[in-house]
Amino acid sequence: MKKFIMALMAVSAAAMSFSASAQFAKPEDAVKYRKAAFSVTAAHFGRLGAMASGKAPFDAKVAADNAEIVANMAKLPWHAFGEGTETAETKAKPEVWKQSAKFKEAADKLQSESVKLVAATKAGKEDAFKTAFQATAGACKSCHDDFKNK
Amino acid sequence: MKKFIMALMAVSAAAMSFSASAQFAKPEDAVKYRKAAFSVTAAHFGRLGAMASGKAPFDAKVAADNAEIVANMAKLPWHAFGEGTETAETKAKPEVWKQSAKFKEAADKLQSESVKLVAATKAGKEDAFKTAFQATAGACKSCHDDFKNK
Repeated sequence: MKKFIMALMAVSAAAMSFSASAQFAKPEDAVKYRKAAFSVTAAHFGRLGAMASGKAPFDAKVAADNAEIVANMAKLPWHAFGEGTETAETKAKPEVWKQSAKFKEAADKLQSESVKLVAATKAGKEDAFKTAFQATAGACKSCHDDFKNK
Repeated sequence: MKKFIMALMAVSAAAMSFSASAQFAKPEDAVKYRKAAFSVTAAHFGRLGAMASGKAPFDAKVAADNAEIVANMAKLPWHAFGEGTETAETKAKPEVWKQSAKFKEAADKLQSESVKLVAATKAGKEDAFKTAFQATAGACKSCHDDFKNK
């Protein structure tokens, strides 16, 4: 147990040496983190997509559960795009750092749309859910177009 | 936009063909998902560890924010340990599937301890936070010992 805690501490100590403001030990750790956060998001968003497209039956409870995860996950990746993480192996375009205000706007848009998506699923109306899903998917796509290499 | 939605739909459709109950297209997708969920969890738990060890000053707000993420993330990985995912490239031991009741107990333990951790951070008492952190770290370690290869 002590060894486990010590290993955790080593990670945390390293994180603090990367930079005063950074919360990751190395740029690669930040990239790994943000990729992981987007992977989890995509899995749940894909399940909503199945319902939005009619490939899976609309189930308000399942939709709400997945939308809540998407909305929670949508808050996470952005602090991992700090200075110094643009040179790591990443699909992020340099525009993330060159147009940081626009990138923040895109990040905020995903968060606000996913909050609306949660509300739509909780209201249990399939049409409203589909509209909110499309808007959220649009926020994903717009940001990918501007800030992510294929 | 249509292409983007179509790509999402393809992922969702594939997910349904893997098995009726599975929510992932391929076993590898489930493994990628659970690794991603644990990566995000570990990053935030490491920040709590820095505070628990005194390497970073205790800040109740920061601790609560990170603990809430840990508690939310702690709900996620388990559905990605479905049947058929034990043969993918994974550090999960066969015991995950052979002793599934014990594994579920360990998963539940992490979730209940992380909920207590959130409560401790919200109360803002450093000592209670440290105690709850140790208990949560113990839940991580115990499960790793029994169910994860090094």
